[in-house]
Amino acid sequence: MNNAVFYHAGCPVCVEAEQMVAEAIDQSKYEVKIVHLGEEKDQIANAEKSGVKSVPALVLNGLPFHINFGADLSALK
Amino acid sequence: MNNAVFYHAGCPVCVEAEQMVAEAIDQSKYEVKIVHLGEEKDQIANAEKSGVKSVPALVLNGLPFHINFGADLSALK
Repeated sequence: MNNAVFYHAGCPVCVEAEQMVAEAIDQSKYEVKIVHLGEEKDQIANAEKSGVKSVPALVLNGLPFHINFGADLSALK
Repeated sequence: MNNAVFYHAGCPVCVEAEQMVAEAIDQSKYEVKIVHLGEEKDQIANAEKSGVKSVPALVLNGLPFHINFGADLSALK
């Protein structure tokens, strides 16, 4: 099973991206996990390890894709 | 049927995003079209109309999502 993690911080840019992008992913191929970094601050280190620099971001099998630009990770710490 | 258009310009950032993101989309829900704006310059106006400002970008049902940052559309004209 492929692995998709959608990181967001609850901002309007994130929520729009989450609804459209996360739901467009083929869930028969990808296990989709959604992480709210504003609420789950202990996940910020994992996001950074995958190369995430801003949210919203989608990590597909460990590769980061930044979607539009909501907030820099430093703003969430 | 939902509509997804992936705009790119053949750059390495685009190709990586295309392979991962475009293929992750649920093709039972979305009709996915891939447009190479470097080769199909007549499509640039359509991309701009959807709000696309840089490639690679994914337009889901008319809403633009910019992925990472490859090239500004002005560089392709």
